[in-house]
Amino acid sequence: MVLVQFVPFASIVQPAFWHRLSELKIDTLQLSDHAVDISASYSVGRSVTDRESGREIDLGCTIAVGAESFDPDSKPHATSIVTKGSLKNFNTVEDFKSADKPALFNAHAQKIWDHILTTKDSSLLTSFFLISFADLKKYKYYYWFAFPAFTAKPAWEIANGWSLASNHFSPDTLAAIHTSLRSRSPILPFFLVHNSQIAPVEDYQSFFAQVPPEHQIIAFIDPSADPANPGWPLRNLLAYLRALYPPSTSTLRVLCWRDLELPPNANWKSRYGILTLPPSDADPTIRPSAVGWEKNSQGKLGPRLADLAPMMDPTRLANQAVDLNLKLMRWRILPSLDLDKVSSTKCLLLGAGTLGCYVARTLMGWGVRTITLVDSGRVSFSNPVRQPLFEFEDCLNGGQPKAECAAARLKKIFPGIDATGHTLAIPMPGHPIPNNPASLEQAKADVTTLESLIQDHDAVFLLMDSRESRWLPTVIGAAKGKIVLNAALGFDTFLVMRHGARASTAPEQRLGCYYCNDIVAPADSLTDRTLDQMCTVTRPGLAPIAASTAVELLATLLQHPKGINAPAPLPNQDLGRLADDATESVLGVVPHQLRGFLAQFRNLPLVGAAYDKCTGCSETVLQAYEKDGFDMLIKAFNDQKYLESLTGLDKLFNEGEEALESVEWDEDDADDDDF
Amino acid sequence: MVLVQFVPFASIVQPAFWHRLSELKIDTLQLSDHAVDISASYSVGRSVTDRESGREIDLGCTIAVGAESFDPDSKPHATSIVTKGSLKNFNTVEDFKSADKPALFNAHAQKIWDHILTTKDSSLLTSFFLISFADLKKYKYYYWFAFPAFTAKPAWEIANGWSLASNHFSPDTLAAIHTSLRSRSPILPFFLVHNSQIAPVEDYQSFFAQVPPEHQIIAFIDPSADPANPGWPLRNLLAYLRALYPPSTSTLRVLCWRDLELPPNANWKSRYGILTLPPSDADPTIRPSAVGWEKNSQGKLGPRLADLAPMMDPTRLANQAVDLNLKLMRWRILPSLDLDKVSSTKCLLLGAGTLGCYVARTLMGWGVRTITLVDSGRVSFSNPVRQPLFEFEDCLNGGQPKAECAAARLKKIFPGIDATGHTLAIPMPGHPIPNNPASLEQAKADVTTLESLIQDHDAVFLLMDSRESRWLPTVIGAAKGKIVLNAALGFDTFLVMRHGARASTAPEQRLGCYYCNDIVAPADSLTDRTLDQMCTVTRPGLAPIAASTAVELLATLLQHPKGINAPAPLPNQDLGRLADDATESVLGVVPHQLRGFLAQFRNLPLVGAAYDKCTGCSETVLQAYEKDGFDMLIKAFNDQKYLESLTGLDKLFNEGEEALESVEWDEDDADDDDF
Repeated sequence: MVLVQFVPFASIVQPAFWHRLSELKIDTLQLSDHAVDISASYSVGRSVTDRESGREIDLGCTIAVGAESFDPDSKPHATSIVTKGSLKNFNTVEDFKSADKPALFNAHAQKIWDHILTTKDSSLLTSFFLISFADLKKYKYYYWFAFPAFTAKPAWEIANGWSLASNHFSPDTLAAIHTSLRSRSPILPFFLVHNSQIAPVEDYQSFFAQVPPEHQIIAFIDPSADPANPGWPLRNLLAYLRALYPPSTSTLRVLCWRDLELPPNANWKSRYGILTLPPSDADPTIRPSAVGWEKNSQGKLGPRLADLAPMMDPTRLANQAVDLNLKLMRWRILPSLDLDKVSSTKCLLLGAGTLGCYVARTLMGWGVRTITLVDSGRVSFSNPVRQPLFEFEDCLNGGQPKAECAAARLKKIFPGIDATGHTLAIPMPGHPIPNNPASLEQAKADVTTLESLIQDHDAVFLLMDSRESRWLPTVIGAAKGKIVLNAALGFDTFLVMRHGARASTAPEQRLGCYYCNDIVAPADSLTDRTLDQMCTVTRPGLAPIAASTAVELLATLLQHPKGINAPAPLPNQDLGRLADDATESVLGVVPHQLRGFLAQFRNLPLVGAAYDKCTGCSETVLQAYEKDGFDMLIKAFNDQKYLESLTGLDKLFNEGEEALESVEWDEDDADDDDF
Repeated sequence: MVLVQFVPFASIVQPAFWHRLSELKIDTLQLSDHAVDISASYSVGRSVTDRESGREIDLGCTIAVGAESFDPDSKPHATSIVTKGSLKNFNTVEDFKSADKPALFNAHAQKIWDHILTTKDSSLLTSFFLISFADLKKYKYYYWFAFPAFTAKPAWEIANGWSLASNHFSPDTLAAIHTSLRSRSPILPFFLVHNSQIAPVEDYQSFFAQVPPEHQIIAFIDPSADPANPGWPLRNLLAYLRALYPPSTSTLRVLCWRDLELPPNANWKSRYGILTLPPSDADPTIRPSAVGWEKNSQGKLGPRLADLAPMMDPTRLANQAVDLNLKLMRWRILPSLDLDKVSSTKCLLLGAGTLGCYVARTLMGWGVRTITLVDSGRVSFSNPVRQPLFEFEDCLNGGQPKAECAAARLKKIFPGIDATGHTLAIPMPGHPIPNNPASLEQAKADVTTLESLIQDHDAVFLLMDSRESRWLPTVIGAAKGKIVLNAALGFDTFLVMRHGARASTAPEQRLGCYYCNDIVAPADSLTDRTLDQMCTVTRPGLAPIAASTAVELLATLLQHPKGINAPAPLPNQDLGRLADDATESVLGVVPHQLRGFLAQFRNLPLVGAAYDKCTGCSETVLQAYEKDGFDMLIKAFNDQKYLESLTGLDKLFNEGEEALESVEWDEDDADDDDF
């Protein structure tokens, strides 16, 4: 007599399992380490023939988890048994290491035992559990499976060893069992056989009621391919039968079913043996001890490590890493943050200079995937130290076109980004279009390009180097109802603002645009400037501060339930204390304008109401543009008086003194921004 | 009889002239367009023999300006005539184009004429002037020379044309003249000859008093090599003589001296001719009209353009462009700004993550030339979108070492920078050094490296990702009297501060360091952290704002007359209105601490006094470090209680409640910064 031995389950973890776990952890579990239900699957044991030696090689008693393990509705493969388990993923490697593993194991074993005794249901006989720690930054996964199996004391013995089932059953009987098994979906993991009939193991008493013991066959789908030993599921099947039917189960005829192929292979691989249990006075309803921690690759009881980093596509790694960083915000700090609202916002950056480069970088930090840059210039030697998307080599041979060069750099930083650059000169009031067909065509083409770019984006950043170049996108952006953000630099001061929504769509008191404080139309401010007026003479820290502030203002605005119509906090409101729900998004208050003063390291929030004679956003201007299109624009470009008379600003000149007093702050240096 | 014609001056401008003009404009002239004195030089005309045809090729009547033209003390070359002129460099190309050129020309011609009549001095006969516009960003120089010369009406005539002087003078006479000319330094541009004697042209009356007219020879150094025509200087020489000595100068014997080589060439090239002036009743003391604008390369009267960009070394171009951008600040806005004080500050950045990258970029914008980065990590996939010195490719194959990679990128951005990276783990309190020789040696080496790095730099930025890693550089920085700046990020808040100067060197009330508010020693905050605690979970705009704020705080501090001892404005002081001279540098106030709140787009200045039990900067700690060095440090690393008992903090625990109240603000999230 020989003691029966069982081939333990060997876990196979598909990389997709870890990917799904990563997603679950980042998006759903976050800081929770509560156990979650998963499933695993196994089938009959497989072996392969070694072509050189002709020997059969046993592929082991495997059980696999994959992406589908997290899906409660996943359909198993026709030849697979799906079994339930649970996964407890710890937050830190220290928690994982110091977890009370015997307690976890015993709890799970107890759960299986209680289930057997109370329900007589066999579905938990192969129930397993898994503990893990996922190092999501490094794509390393520490894990340890347990397949609790109850030990029999004394142990089961086998007299004549395991032999081929075909020595004991006729080919017709085997074929009939095969057909019965495959006709059920899912396949029965544990079953009873009498003659050519099968039944679920739960039917033990009724199915075997009239069957003499020598014809009662206990069977299970056997994941072992080892001729000498059955697989792990048999262990709990024996315990199940002993616990429920102690009188009749001291001798058991066991069929280890290993044939599920279609059509059935004439060379039947299933095995058969007769097991006996030596007499004992142990109470079979008392839970036996259990074993079943999986050994690691060194053959020791210990966790395994899956390092997925080397096998991952670097671009995908980058994508996941960037997402991860953002999603971590939602774990603890801001669960209600809607990251997609920010990352799906298509951003058009007019100007690829100091502000444009820094805005693009901060947008990328927020996960924004579509960034389009527009600039008419080339990279010059003074740019790279202040414009963080350019390098020295971009200045050589006359310099790369800035917009395209910046877009290419964004892709080098993050291949997953959709970045495009357009070299385009934006027509401006005060800079007349020369009156010849070629110049007119060019201006018309430039306007059309700008219109379609603004149409195709959700947010437009005005990051140019002159006051008048902001006019055309202000008009188009307002007409098309886009979010318009504006940043301009002085020497040590900056202005960051959002334009108010269009009057016809803004229900409440409307916020102003960049031009709402002006009493003259924008005009040529570029000609006849000295070098210090032409260049961005600013403190170097100003642009990154202003650019990041503009992006954070956009992010805050996008989180506000009213979006572009979010009201602004009043300037005399103490932002730190009197936060008003109506003016707050989950990220905080949504100011209208911020004026920054670097000499005092101070920001001043401002609110400016829309002006009904504004040359940038008044309905008069927008409707004239919508009615006459390019014909209206060309008048604005060519004739300084046009916008002033259109809006009625010209009539105000007579009341000059009064009007001047209404200007809240001096914008003279606000147009001295970057090259 | 043939009218005498004169070969006009042709200007030659050495590139060095434009480089010097650029420097002068940037550093001295700035916005001034007042005329400045310059000089030019010419010598005798040169011709070369064409090897193929054997013909003499006249190199033109050239006059040159170079770097020395701006130097009033420059010594002319032995065979050169230096002549005075003036340069009027306009601020804009529009000013240059629209300048009243006839008025400028007439003023200069009048000045020459008045000088002749009032002084009888010949030194302004070749006086010239130059107008220019320097496009310093593109290295393009628009310029136009004028060499005013008075026209004679009626014009001078020549009977027998110009012939070789050697046909009229004996070789001995020519040699004697040559010797006399070369014996004077500088060479006489205009002179009189009688027999073998020479004299300055100013000696006309005395030198020729006893000489019959047919032996009176008028001579000048002739820049023309044209056998048929004398050079431009003769024109004003004739006008000079007519104006001052009208009775005797209707016939003039003119020697065009073209021989200055040593030894004198036997093949004399000087030429001789007899000029006559038809009778006229014009008043010779009335200023004749003048001509002399130089023609451009198209042979038209118009400006020339020197485009130096293609011939310049790109690295030098980058250097100049970066300097230019900074120096423009001083033109109009801040003439008293000491740029060198900032750019010469050697900066050590501890941490090359989000903060480190942005700090490095803003320092580069300020022209800082020495930037050293220290980090122990490698670039990971989540880094590039937030850390603006890394790209996707830096993450491949396990990632580049961050410090070295960042330094290499700085050089790619600006080749003129001295950037270095060191991979170094900074030992920390609460992270005991394992007690084995190898670990101890490594820790000792790391401390030594850090000590020498801090010693070799002027300012140390603490930009790490844990509270305790800031301790060692805080101690070393305080002991060595370095400027220490500290930046730390929360989710949407930041802290930027400067550490106070050491107690023993700070005369007044001393400002605190990062640890002065603490009532426990720094300890392990890294182990057992969940992913969102390990990573920088911050709003993406926060780091560029905090980093730039830290750099601007340094720049402001450096401009303060008291430097590291600059007092901080009080927190309740209204920075915008009550600016106190004592607390202001030319760049503004120098706060001690700034706490930024992105949810309100607000900065809060704070002042924290130094704490005499501080574990970071108290004299007790610094003196223990100075006395025992590494032995003291290892106690701090290994024993949590050591620093607390050294400083007496432990005794305070009993008074816990009171002590807690003295904590001004919650620093819990201040250590959650970048990876």
